[in-house]
Parts: sequence; structure tokens; C-alpha cells
Amino acid sequence: MAEARFDVAAIGSAIVDILSRTDDQFLTDNGMVKGTMALTTAEQAKLIYERMGSAVEISGGSAANTTAGIASLGGKPCFIGKVGADKLGEIFAHDMKAIGVEYHGGENRPTKLPTATCLILVTPDGQRTMNTYLGACTEMSPADIDADRIASSQVTYIEGYQWDTPLAKQAIRKACQAAKGAGRKVALSLSDPFVVDRHRDELMALIRDDVDILFGNEDEIFSLYRAADLESAVASLREAGALGIMTRSAKGAVVLDGATTIAVDAAPVAKVIDTTGAGDLFAAGFLFGYTHGRDLTASARIGAVAAAEVISHMGARPEVSLKDLLVKHGL
Amino acid sequence: MAEARFDVAAIGSAIVDILSRTDDQFLTDNGMVKGTMALTTAEQAKLIYERMGSAVEISGGSAANTTAGIASLGGKPCFIGKVGADKLGEIFAHDMKAIGVEYHGGENRPTKLPTATCLILVTPDGQRTMNTYLGACTEMSPADIDADRIASSQVTYIEGYQWDTPLAKQAIRKACQAAKGAGRKVALSLSDPFVVDRHRDELMALIRDDVDILFGNEDEIFSLYRAADLESAVASLREAGALGIMTRSAKGAVVLDGATTIAVDAAPVAKVIDTTGAGDLFAAGFLFGYTHGRDLTASARIGAVAAAEVISHMGARPEVSLKDLLVKHGL
Repeated sequence: MAEARFDVAAIGSAIVDILSRTDDQFLTDNGMVKGTMALTTAEQAKLIYERMGSAVEISGGSAANTTAGIASLGGKPCFIGKVGADKLGEIFAHDMKAIGVEYHGGENRPTKLPTATCLILVTPDGQRTMNTYLGACTEMSPADIDADRIASSQVTYIEGYQWDTPLAKQAIRKACQAAKGAGRKVALSLSDPFVVDRHRDELMALIRDDVDILFGNEDEIFSLYRAADLESAVASLREAGALGIMTRSAKGAVVLDGATTIAVDAAPVAKVIDTTGAGDLFAAGFLFGYTHGRDLTASARIGAVAAAEVISHMGARPEVSLKDLLVKHGL
Repeated sequence: MAEARFDVAAIGSAIVDILSRTDDQFLTDNGMVKGTMALTTAEQAKLIYERMGSAVEISGGSAANTTAGIASLGGKPCFIGKVGADKLGEIFAHDMKAIGVEYHGGENRPTKLPTATCLILVTPDGQRTMNTYLGACTEMSPADIDADRIASSQVTYIEGYQWDTPLAKQAIRKACQAAKGAGRKVALSLSDPFVVDRHRDELMALIRDDVDILFGNEDEIFSLYRAADLESAVASLREAGALGIMTRSAKGAVVLDGATTIAVDAAPVAKVIDTTGAGDLFAAGFLFGYTHGRDLTASARIGAVAAAEVISHMGARPEVSLKDLLVKHGL
């Protein structure tokens, strides 16, 4: 196999996050379910924005955050998404390139829709509740996928979120085919328990046919297998055949590799400020280790360190060099 | 005199800050003077943005930050500035209104220029170096000033930065006239030592004729009076006749009221992350105290607490309720 140009090619929504602190009452008053992602229309997004407090704008998007983490660790990521021809699209593109991510925003097939935004309400407990208006992301299609780039990436990483967008699903099928055809690995993040609930059968089929590495938190994996307890969730995850990684917030993470189980602790955090991006950065750390010849335990530990950094501040991308942080942690 | 509707009416540039961490070498390589503000053309701004790292976008603007601080303290501020008819203009307007600032963005006289941006490079020492593209701000004119609103504000607060924009200067002259005609106070922030150097004579005339309260840091006041040492700077400031407030970073601040000198210490900060907005928030705290019947010492202490909060994180506006913070500090 030819040497890969990229460690990870990630396909996901290109989103600018609009983060604001709020209290639990705001979530209740606006019918939001804490810790989850809801899709909104442009009109709903406008209404929520009018009600929410002053905000900061930071490039986000789940898989895009993961590539930002890999770049910060010193890896070679590329990102495929779609932005609008507008200011937020410029901001998103700038932030990807500035951090060292090879970026493909579908510029060759422009869309008239605006760049996606995610209105994120951060409660005092550090939990984030997200309201996404997908905009330009809904027009990502197979034509935006460069099969050569996918074939030249060790791992193709897919957001579960993409299952909410029919065209994007087709794009992902094309990418999976290109990856598998080149003997590369496919990784999937389950993204959100409600996404899993909406698309369970299709996600199960994808996992069975194409997925080599599956990331999910407890809620997502419970939802996927309609599991009542951790034991049965783990049993189902083990049966799926893929390398399974279950993140468990403060309880760390569990890696399931065939019959083997590896548990790693969460890395310490002085104060949890904003959990946005925790799973994305765990995946970044794990995939960086995985694509750099580290064993599963070391890879999961790198994931834990990356996740701990991102929850210690507002925003879903690292504020410091994760490469330097790994050195400090002896990894 | 009728009761004032507003504590402070601030006139300034409506700017969205684009903040990125960098090192000293970047400043040197790009010919920037640390800790100061440089004006750029749209083309220069584009070039700097391309070179700088991934960023966060947060509403800023010196006088606008001051009004945000006054609102966070529980006061009644209004802000007069000018944004473009674009996404960043929407963001700026949202953030002002969301924090409780009565906002006038010149919507009745739309401009085709984009909303102003300030590319802020934050070095590891927490210092900020700013590159401002004024865009829509250059079209703020006397027509944007509602004399009734000015007449109904206890203090009209002006940015020295406005002296770089000929039309804005006329707007400020109109505002000063309205304030003075109504027996209200006028406050001026010197903003930047180079601004002072560019417009020394006009600023001196304004101070002599209209300014009741003058804010400046050491560099700015040294520049204004071409002073060689603190003693002669203070002597000149005292002669000016206005209430003089000199901020001195970690050394606190000095209030000069006629022959009286009041020195207050800086409020403690665990770690200085980003000094953007320190002077703006000191002015917010001082003016809140001043317009709420507090004495000069208490007003300056409130300023010190507000400034300490804003330098403890990225961005130039308070992240927590300053009102609550005052209670904690027994103020």
C-alpha cells in the first residue's frame, strides 16, 4: 500500500459555533434537552439567537474539531465539509487552514445557503446544549468527495450527524467505498443519542459493512443497541466486530478490541467550563495515537488528555498545543 | 435637571474582535508595536488575517466594551456606533442588546461598508496588539447622534480612537454640545498613545473646552503631555482642570481631583490571559460608581475589579456578572 498522505480524512458538517452561557431555566423555557443536539430551521435559529445572551463565535463542527485536535497533536488531517459563500464560511476556512488542516469546503461547487451555525447554550455545570442550523451543509454531495484523497488517508472518519442529511449520506457511501477499496480504515462517531435513534438501522448496517473503529459515549451506544445496562451495551458493541471505543465522561473510556477490554481514566481537569468538543477531541487523540503506531492503551490516554484540555475552556478546539501537552503527560 | 434616562451614553467604533494567540516573533515579523492599535486598510487586514492563527470572534470596540461593563454592573448604558448590513453587524447588535445596552447602530442611515473588525494578537504575556479595519465606522456622522439621548445621559463617554475618523469627530462635537447644553458631563478616553500623538492639539483643545473626566494609561498621558516622567505627567494632568484618571496596569490607578490624589491598587488576578479591554472595563467600573453616587475611591475600586475580571480571560467583555463580583468584593 502506498504511504498515506493523511492520517485522517474527516467528513462532517462545517459549522461556526455561537456559544453563550445560560442557566437551566433557559433550556426548560425553550424546550431543549440538556447535552443533546437539535436541528433547527433558519427561523427557529433566529428566534433562539434573539433570546440567548451575548456570545462568542468559534469555528466548530464535530469532525472538524477532531481534525483540529489531530493537527494540534502534530498529525496530518484533512477535512471535507461545505460552507456558504459568506463571512462565517471565510472564518471557518481560515481557522482550519491556520491550524494546519488540509481543508476542502466544496468551493468548486458553491451553494447559496449560508454557512451552518450551532447555537450552543453552556450551563453552569459545563454541559452544552446545541441547536444546529445546517444551511450549506445540506448540500454536501458525492461530488464534494475526492476519492483519491480518501484512498490516501489511513483512516476516514465520519460523523453520525451526517445521517440527518440525505445527500451527505451518499457522499459518505462514496467515501467508504474509496477507503475500503484502498484497504484503508473507516471510523464512525455516533455523535448524538437522538441521531442514533433517528437512523438506527442505517447506522447498524454501516457498522456491519464498513466501520472498523466505532466511537460513542454511553448514551449513544445504549441508544444504538437499545441497551438497558452497561453490560449488555458492551456485549453488543463487542459483537459488532469493530474496534469499539466508549467514552464515559468523568469515568474515562473503555476500548473493546475483540475479547480484550482496556479501561483508561479521564485526565484530571481543574474545573469543567464547557464540555463542547469532549468526544471530538477524545477521537482526535485516539486516532492520532492509532495512526502513529501507538498501542490502544496509549491511544486512549492521548484521547483523554486532549478531551481534558478542551473541556477546561469555552469552545470545542484546543487552546494550547496538544503536542506540548502530550510531552508534559509523558505520552 | 430632568432625571437622566441613561448613566452613560458612549460613542465609539462598533467592532467585532478577531482574537488569536501568537508569539512575539509574529509581531516583529509583521512590523507591529506590542500593546498598541494600528489602523489597516481592508487589504492589509486580509493579509494579516491570512497569516494569523485560528481565532475566536467576540464583539468588542473600546467604548462598546465600556457600556457592556456598565450593563453587567447593573447600570443603564446606551451605545452609539455604526455597523455594516452584514453578519458581523448582526452579531455586534445582538451582543449589545443581549447584555442590556440600549444600542444605536446607525440602522436608519445604512452604509455599504462592512462592519469593522479588529485583528488582535495576544502574546503569552497577555498583551494585546491590535489591527483595526474601521469599515462602517468611518461613516458615523452627526446625523447618527440623537441629541435628546445625549442630553438625557449623565455622562457622554467618547473614545479617543474616534479622532482618526473626520466624520466621527463632527459627530462627537455635536454630542459634546448637546451634553454641555443639558448640563451633563463629558468623559474622554485617550485610547492609544499613537492616537494621542496623531491628534494631540485637537485632543488638548477638546479637553480644555469640554472634557470633565479624562481616562488614560501612563503611555497615553505621557504622550499627550510629552512628559518625560510620572511627576511631570501628573502635574500636567492636574493642570488640565478635568478629573483625571490614570491607569497603571499592575500598579493600579491614580485619580487626580484638583489638588487631591487618590491611588488605588489593582485588583488581584490569578493569571493575566488577555489584557484586551482592561482600560475599557476600568472606565466602566469608574463611571458606574461615579453615576451612582459613589465617591472617587469607591468608583476607582469598582473600576479595578471590573478590569481584573476582563484580563483573566480572552475577550474584552465580562464573562461573569460584575454586579455579583462587586458584592463578593464588598463594594
